[in-house]
Amino acid sequence: MIKTAIIGASGYTGAELARLLAQHPQFSLCDLFVSAQSQDAGKKLSELYGRLQGEVELVLQPLAEDALGTLADNYDAVFLATPHQASHDWMPQLTAGRAVIFDLSGAFRLKDKQVFEQYYGFGHQHSALLDNAVYGLADWHQQAISTASLIAVPGCYPTASLTALKPLQQAGLLDSQHWPVINAVSGVSGAGRKATLNSSFCEVSLQPYGVLGHRHQPEISAELGAPVIFTPHLGNFKRGILATITVKVAPGTDTEQVDKAYQQAYGNNPLVRLRQSWPKIDEVAGSCYCDLFWKLDPDSGYLVVASAIDNLLKGAAAQALQCANLRFNFQPQTALVQE
Amino acid sequence: MIKTAIIGASGYTGAELARLLAQHPQFSLCDLFVSAQSQDAGKKLSELYGRLQGEVELVLQPLAEDALGTLADNYDAVFLATPHQASHDWMPQLTAGRAVIFDLSGAFRLKDKQVFEQYYGFGHQHSALLDNAVYGLADWHQQAISTASLIAVPGCYPTASLTALKPLQQAGLLDSQHWPVINAVSGVSGAGRKATLNSSFCEVSLQPYGVLGHRHQPEISAELGAPVIFTPHLGNFKRGILATITVKVAPGTDTEQVDKAYQQAYGNNPLVRLRQSWPKIDEVAGSCYCDLFWKLDPDSGYLVVASAIDNLLKGAAAQALQCANLRFNFQPQTALVQE
Amino acid sequence: MIKTAIIGASGYTGAELARLLAQHPQFSLCDLFVSAQSQDAGKKLSELYGRLQGEVELVLQPLAEDALGTLADNYDAVFLATPHQASHDWMPQLTAGRAVIFDLSGAFRLKDKQVFEQYYGFGHQHSALLDNAVYGLADWHQQAISTASLIAVPGCYPTASLTALKPLQQAGLLDSQHWPVINAVSGVSGAGRKATLNSSFCEVSLQPYGVLGHRHQPEISAELGAPVIFTPHLGNFKRGILATITVKVAPGTDTEQVDKAYQQAYGNNPLVRLRQSWPKIDEVAGSCYCDLFWKLDPDSGYLVVASAIDNLLKGAAAQALQCANLRFNFQPQTALVQE
Amino acid sequence: MIKTAIIGASGYTGAELARLLAQHPQFSLCDLFVSAQSQDAGKKLSELYGRLQGEVELVLQPLAEDALGTLADNYDAVFLATPHQASHDWMPQLTAGRAVIFDLSGAFRLKDKQVFEQYYGFGHQHSALLDNAVYGLADWHQQAISTASLIAVPGCYPTASLTALKPLQQAGLLDSQHWPVINAVSGVSGAGRKATLNSSFCEVSLQPYGVLGHRHQPEISAELGAPVIFTPHLGNFKRGILATITVKVAPGTDTEQVDKAYQQAYGNNPLVRLRQSWPKIDEVAGSCYCDLFWKLDPDSGYLVVASAIDNLLKGAAAQALQCANLRFNFQPQTALVQE
Repeated sequence: MIKTAIIGASGYTGAELARLLAQHPQFSLCDLFVSAQSQDAGKKLSELYGRLQGEVELVLQPLAEDALGTLADNYDAVFLATPHQASHDWMPQLTAGRAVIFDLSGAFRLKDKQVFEQYYGFGHQHSALLDNAVYGLADWHQQAISTASLIAVPGCYPTASLTALKPLQQAGLLDSQHWPVINAVSGVSGAGRKATLNSSFCEVSLQPYGVLGHRHQPEISAELGAPVIFTPHLGNFKRGILATITVKVAPGTDTEQVDKAYQQAYGNNPLVRLRQSWPKIDEVAGSCYCDLFWKLDPDSGYLVVASAIDNLLKGAAAQALQCANLRFNFQPQTALVQE
Repeated sequence: MIKTAIIGASGYTGAELARLLAQHPQFSLCDLFVSAQSQDAGKKLSELYGRLQGEVELVLQPLAEDALGTLADNYDAVFLATPHQASHDWMPQLTAGRAVIFDLSGAFRLKDKQVFEQYYGFGHQHSALLDNAVYGLADWHQQAISTASLIAVPGCYPTASLTALKPLQQAGLLDSQHWPVINAVSGVSGAGRKATLNSSFCEVSLQPYGVLGHRHQPEISAELGAPVIFTPHLGNFKRGILATITVKVAPGTDTEQVDKAYQQAYGNNPLVRLRQSWPKIDEVAGSCYCDLFWKLDPDSGYLVVASAIDNLLKGAAAQALQCANLRFNFQPQTALVQE
Repeated sequence: MIKTAIIGASGYTGAELARLLAQHPQFSLCDLFVSAQSQDAGKKLSELYGRLQGEVELVLQPLAEDALGTLADNYDAVFLATPHQASHDWMPQLTAGRAVIFDLSGAFRLKDKQVFEQYYGFGHQHSALLDNAVYGLADWHQQAISTASLIAVPGCYPTASLTALKPLQQAGLLDSQHWPVINAVSGVSGAGRKATLNSSFCEVSLQPYGVLGHRHQPEISAELGAPVIFTPHLGNFKRGILATITVKVAPGTDTEQVDKAYQQAYGNNPLVRLRQSWPKIDEVAGSCYCDLFWKLDPDSGYLVVASAIDNLLKGAAAQALQCANLRFNFQPQTALVQE
Repeated sequence: MIKTAIIGASGYTGAELARLLAQHPQFSLCDLFVSAQSQDAGKKLSELYGRLQGEVELVLQPLAEDALGTLADNYDAVFLATPHQASHDWMPQLTAGRAVIFDLSGAFRLKDKQVFEQYYGFGHQHSALLDNAVYGLADWHQQAISTASLIAVPGCYPTASLTALKPLQQAGLLDSQHWPVINAVSGVSGAGRKATLNSSFCEVSLQPYGVLGHRHQPEISAELGAPVIFTPHLGNFKRGILATITVKVAPGTDTEQVDKAYQQAYGNNPLVRLRQSWPKIDEVAGSCYCDLFWKLDPDSGYLVVASAIDNLLKGAAAQALQCANLRFNFQPQTALVQE
C-alpha cells in the first residue's frame, strides 16, 4: 500500500482527493493536514462535509510548517491542495524526502518565470524544481509522469481546453493564422471553499471574468505551443466546466481527419469519452471523465469542439490521482471509473 | 413630496427600498446612508447593484453616527435597514426629530423585554420607545400605523405566517389544543448581503435551521396570541418565502367558514391574493403580493394553508413602504402594484 | 452470479438501478427492457443518459408482454421500474417463474384494497399476491424480505418519513392525540422522465401539491400504524428529498430517550447516518444513505426530526438493491456504500 | 389610446407582452387570442400565469383563423407571438386591415428566401410582404420602424449579438479576415412554454446546441453585413441571454476608438446600458435593458464584448413594444423603464 497524505485537505479539492483515495485499493490515506492556523484543525473532515460521514473519518491535523521535510519523508505520496504561494514556499523541503509530490496549485505549472510572476504576483525562487516539475496532464504525459518526483497537476480550465485542442494540434489541423477562441463556464466550486461576496449564492449569475488576462491563458498556450484567446465565466452551478472552443482548421481539413485525430488520441482511453452528442455539465459532474464532441463546417473551415469535465475531479483531484496511478504503475483509471 | 432617507442602504433590503422609493410618485428619495466604516461609502448604489444602473443613481454616504438627531430632522421619513443593535442604539436620537421612522430591524418588534433579550442577545434599553412602537403588519394595523412615529416592520417569516394565520384566529377557527405547525423555506437573500460560508453558492442546499429556537417564533406567537411551532429552512433560490402551515381547526369547522374568514380579511386587499391554486415562489418573487391558498380535510379537522411572498419585498421593503403609504395617507398599494 | 433483468429501464429509477447493478460484484445485469411501444426500444441506455457511456452499454429491448412468464423464468431477479398498472397487471405472470420480483411501483404496497382503489384509481385484482407481497422498507423488514418472492419497494416519501418516525413509534414516544405533521420537498426527478409542462424547467418553483390527498399518506400511515398529515412539495432541484417532521412526544419524554430510540434503531446501520447537524439535500444526493437529525423542545413536548435521502437511490433504486442484497444473503450495503 | 390585440398570448413571450401592454399609458390591451384548438382557450391568462393575477385579467379567446382580416381591422396594433409558419400563412390577411403588425416570429426576418427555406424548412410565399417588412432592431432602425406596417421583431440571440457588434461594424473597427465568434447562453424560457423532454427540469444543464447551423446565424450575418460564427447554449436558468463575443479588430484600433464607437451608438439610449463591469444575467433578468461591457487587448488585437438581455423582454416582448412606441410616436422607452 502507498502511504499517502494530503496537505490542504479542508478545501473542495482536498475533500474530493480524500474521498477518492479512501476508496482506492492500493493507496492508504493516512493523514490529512490543514494550516496550523485554520480553525478546522482538530475537526474531522466529515464535520465540514456531511456527505463524507461514514466514508472518510480522518481528523484534520495542524501542519507543522517547520518540519515539512520530516513529514514528507513519512509518506510515499503527498498531495498538495494548497495556495500557490504555500506550494511554492514549501516545495524545497517537501521534495527533500522520499515522497512523490503531486501539487494541485499553480506554483510549478508555468516554466517561464517572467510569465509566472506576471500572472501569480510573486517571483519564482525555485528554478531547479520548476525545471524538473512534470506537467501532469495525465492523458498526454504518461511517460514523464511515471518517473517524476514533482508533478504539477494542471488547472481545471487547461485540462478541459487542452484535452480538446491537443489532438488537433498534434495532427496539424489548426490554422496558424487564427487563434483558437476558448469560451469556458465553470461551476462555483472552482473558486474554492471560502466566504466571499462574489461566490455568495445571491451574487452568482452567469458572467465573464478575468477576460484577456486569466492566468490559465498562458498555461494553455504554453502546453499547446500556440496562442489562444481564453474567456472564463462563472456559472450558476456547483460543479463542472464546459469549454466551447472555436478554431479555424487548416485549409482542406475534412471531418474524417478530425475524427481520426480524436480517435487516435483517445480511442482507447477509458477516461476520455468521445460522445455522440454535445456534452452537458450534469453528465460529467461527479465523474472523472472528460467528454468531447465536435462539429466541422467544411465550407467555412470553422470547427467547434466542446469539452466537459467535473472541475474538482478530472480538473483537479481525479487527474492528480490519475497521475499517481501512473507514477506508481497502476492502471490510470484505477479507482476513477467503475470496472 | 415626502423627503426620505434610507440608513443601511447597501444591503439587499436597502437596495429594494431605494428602487421602490425612486419610482414612488409622492416620496422623494434624497439620501442613502451606510456605516461610516463601510468600504461601500462613497460608491453609487448602482456600483453594488448593476441592475440599478439608470434607476437609482444616488451615492452611499457615510453616516454621521454622532449627529443622528440632526440628520433625522432633515427628512419626513427615515427607513432603517440596519442591524438590530444599531437600530436599538440609535433610536432615541433618530426619533427626537420630525421624521417618521420605519425600522426594518428586529429591535422594536417584541414587546416583552425578557423574550427580546433571550432571542436577540442583548438587553433592551428603550422601554418607552418599545411601548410606543407600532408593529407594522400593514394589512392588519392600518389605523395604528397611520399615526405612529416609530413603526417596527415585521420580519419576512412572520409576515408570511401571520398573513395566513390571523384570519383563522380572528374567526375563531383554530383549535386551541393543537399548535399551528409552520414550515417555511426562505431564499438565500434572507441572510443578507455578506460573505459567509453558509450562504456561499456551493454550500446552499435545502436544510432546516434555527429549529425550535428561531427568534421569529416568539414574534409570530406574540402577534397571533397563541403558541406556534416554527421551523425555517434555507432553500436554493435567491428570493421568496413559502410558508406551509398545518393547523387543527375548531371542531365542526367547514370549508365555507374558512373561505369566508379569508374573504373577509383580504377580499378587497390589492396586496393579498386569494389564489385558485397552490402558490409557488416564482409567482411572487419580484412582486409585492402575498399569495394564499388553503385546503381543509373536514374528516380529520386538519387544514393546510400556504403563503408565499418575496422576502425582500412584502417581507421587508414593500411592507415598509406600505406602512409609509398608510402613514402619509396614500393608498396602501401605491408604487407597489401596477394600476 | 445472480442473473438479473430490469423492466422499465429507460426511466430515471431504471437507469439508476442499471448503474448500481452494473457495479455489483454478485449481480449480473443481463437485460434491460422497455415497453415494446417505446421509441427508446433498440437504443443503448447510454444514448438516453450520456453520463452512463462506458458504465452501462446494454441495449433497451422491447418487452414481449405476452411472454412475461417465460421471460421472468430466465432470471434470478427481476426489477420492475414500471407504471403502477403495468406492475399490477403483469404480476401474476411474472411471479409464476423462479425470479424474485422487486417491484418499485405502488401496485403492491397498500394492503387495503379499498384504500388502494381510492388512491390509485383502479381496483386491485390480485389479492393473494397482495397478501404475500412484503413491504420492502429494507432497514425494518430484513427477515421478511430475506424469504420473499415479491417485494414491494416503498416510495421515496414513505422511506424518508418512516425511517424518521418508526424508531419513535417503536419506542412508544409519540403522543397519540397529535398526528405527526410531515412536510417534505422532493426534487423534480421524482416526477419521472417525461415531457410535462409541470416539470418543465421554467415552471418549476417550490410549491405544495397533492395536499391532504397524496397516495403516500395512507402508505405511511399503514406502515406506521398511526395517522399522519403529509404535505409534499416540488422543489427546484433535481434529486433528493427532505422531510421535516413535527411530532408531539408522549408526556415526560426527554432527549436521552429520543437519542436512545434512534441509536437502537440505526446505531449499527451503515445506510442510515445519525448526523451531528441538520441534513441538507446535497449531502445525500447521489448517495444511498438516509441522514437523520432531530431536536426536542422538552418544555412544549414538540420534537422536530429531519430526514434526507436521494429520492432515486435510498428512495427507490438503492433500496430495491438493498432488498435484493438481503434476499440473496449479501451484506445489505453491498455496492451501495464504499467499503 | 392605441387599440391592441395579441395573437398567441398564452406563451411566455405573449404573457410578457400582455403584462407590459397592460401597464402602458397609451396602449389599450383589448383582446388576447390563442389558437382555437388550444386547451387554454376560454381561460384567463392569469390562470396559466399565477403571477399575473390582479395584473392582467383578460380571457384567452379562440382565434377565428378564417376571419383574420376582419379581426386585424378592429385594432390599431396587433402583436403576433405565434409559430413561424402561422405568422407566415396569416400575414396577407392580417396586413390587409388598418392594424400595424408586430411579428415576433421568424417569418419575416430573413430577406433571402433561399436562406429562409434552408433554415425554416418551408418556402416563403409572400415576397412583397417580406420586402416591405422592416427589421425591428429598435435601437438601430428607428426611422424605418416609425412608418412601417409590418415589423419583424428580431430574435433574442440576434438582439444581444447585434447590439454588441453593430457599433464596431459601423465604426469600421472589425478585421475583415477574422469572423466574429459569438458564444451565447440562453435561459430555458427561450424554448417556449411547452412540454418537451429537452426542457424538462432534470434534463437541463449547460450544453451547446444548433452548432454551426442555428437559424439565428444567418439573421445576425445579414443584419451585420458580415459572416459570424454563432454557437448557442442552453443554460440552467429561466430567463436571460449572455452573449460573449470575440472579435479581431482592425490593425491599430485602440481602446479609445472602441469606447467612442459604443458611446456614439448608445451614449444617450435609455435602453442600452454601457456598464463599468462585466454584465451578469441576473442584472438584466426582468428588465428591458441591454447591458454591454468590453475589453480590448491591444497587443493581440482581440476584443471581447459581452452583451446581456432578458430574452423574453429586450429579446422579444420589450423590443416589440419599443418598436410600437416608435411606430406610434411615443418615447422608445415608454413603459419599459422607470421614469
